[in-house]
Amino acid sequence: MALDKYIRIVPDFPKEGIVFKDITPLLLDPEGRKECLTMLLSSLHSKKIDKVIGVESRGFFFGMLLAEALQVGFIPVRKPKKLPFTTISASYDLEYGTDALEIHTDAIQKGDRVLIHDDVLATGGTAKAVCELVEQLGGEIVQLNFLMEIPFLKGRDKIKNYEIFAAMQ
Amino acid sequence: MALDKYIRIVPDFPKEGIVFKDITPLLLDPEGRKECLTMLLSSLHSKKIDKVIGVESRGFFFGMLLAEALQVGFIPVRKPKKLPFTTISASYDLEYGTDALEIHTDAIQKGDRVLIHDDVLATGGTAKAVCELVEQLGGEIVQLNFLMEIPFLKGRDKIKNYEIFAAMQ
Repeated sequence: MALDKYIRIVPDFPKEGIVFKDITPLLLDPEGRKECLTMLLSSLHSKKIDKVIGVESRGFFFGMLLAEALQVGFIPVRKPKKLPFTTISASYDLEYGTDALEIHTDAIQKGDRVLIHDDVLATGGTAKAVCELVEQLGGEIVQLNFLMEIPFLKGRDKIKNYEIFAAMQ
Repeated sequence: MALDKYIRIVPDFPKEGIVFKDITPLLLDPEGRKECLTMLLSSLHSKKIDKVIGVESRGFFFGMLLAEALQVGFIPVRKPKKLPFTTISASYDLEYGTDALEIHTDAIQKGDRVLIHDDVLATGGTAKAVCELVEQLGGEIVQLNFLMEIPFLKGRDKIKNYEIFAAMQ
């Protein structure tokens, strides 16, 4: 797809055998950002959105741009102990062990329509954890929105009850 | 100042005796973001900027909005081993020990006029490290730009050769 030209392929990062897709060339190019943002927004078909979540930390970049374009609140979902106020937490599996994500309890009001943004849909573990956080606070998930998807990792299987959009595969 | 109403004071975070200023209410409020962004931009007096740096990770929020408003490239400066391509590194002192920040070597071209953004100017250690990275790549620092400054920590002393702006104190 057209956006691929803004993505740099880095073999063996963060470890041997993994082909990492580097979004920093996209961040460096205002035209690329515009193309990407337009694509993400058009996937929403003017749906009503009350809040945008960006997932730490590469989800912060376009999460923030989406919140600004939609003129709605931005919510950072972060790794444990980063958010200073009252939080709830959801854990997810890593290759070895587990990790967790947190959200401020006052970030979402019951009935809020929430767009969840992250850079990559891989195994879907973090996406599922974020869905749990939103629903625990009474929010409604409008869409899970990604810059790119790695289809062979089958992340969609973990979040199949939600609308999913990825700008690149 | 007017922006203070968007900042939440959290005592004893991340540890006892520290009064943390939480910017998440500001992120949640599109009006607050607009006020803040207008103030940050007006401090630049239409100076020419080629790139905006956002410092991991709370500098990503308004760093991205500044880059978008100025229609220039955005560069994330990150903690070690987060950036996948060729990097250079600068270390800075912590209360106990040291930490480091990295930048992609191709993010800045010689002569680029760079705006550095972070959320808080505290001791100035990270700000000084980012200045070193920019100058090592041949960039020119136009301004160090913060949401807020904690004056009693005297961070300005470490970066006194540069223009500094903070929207709140």
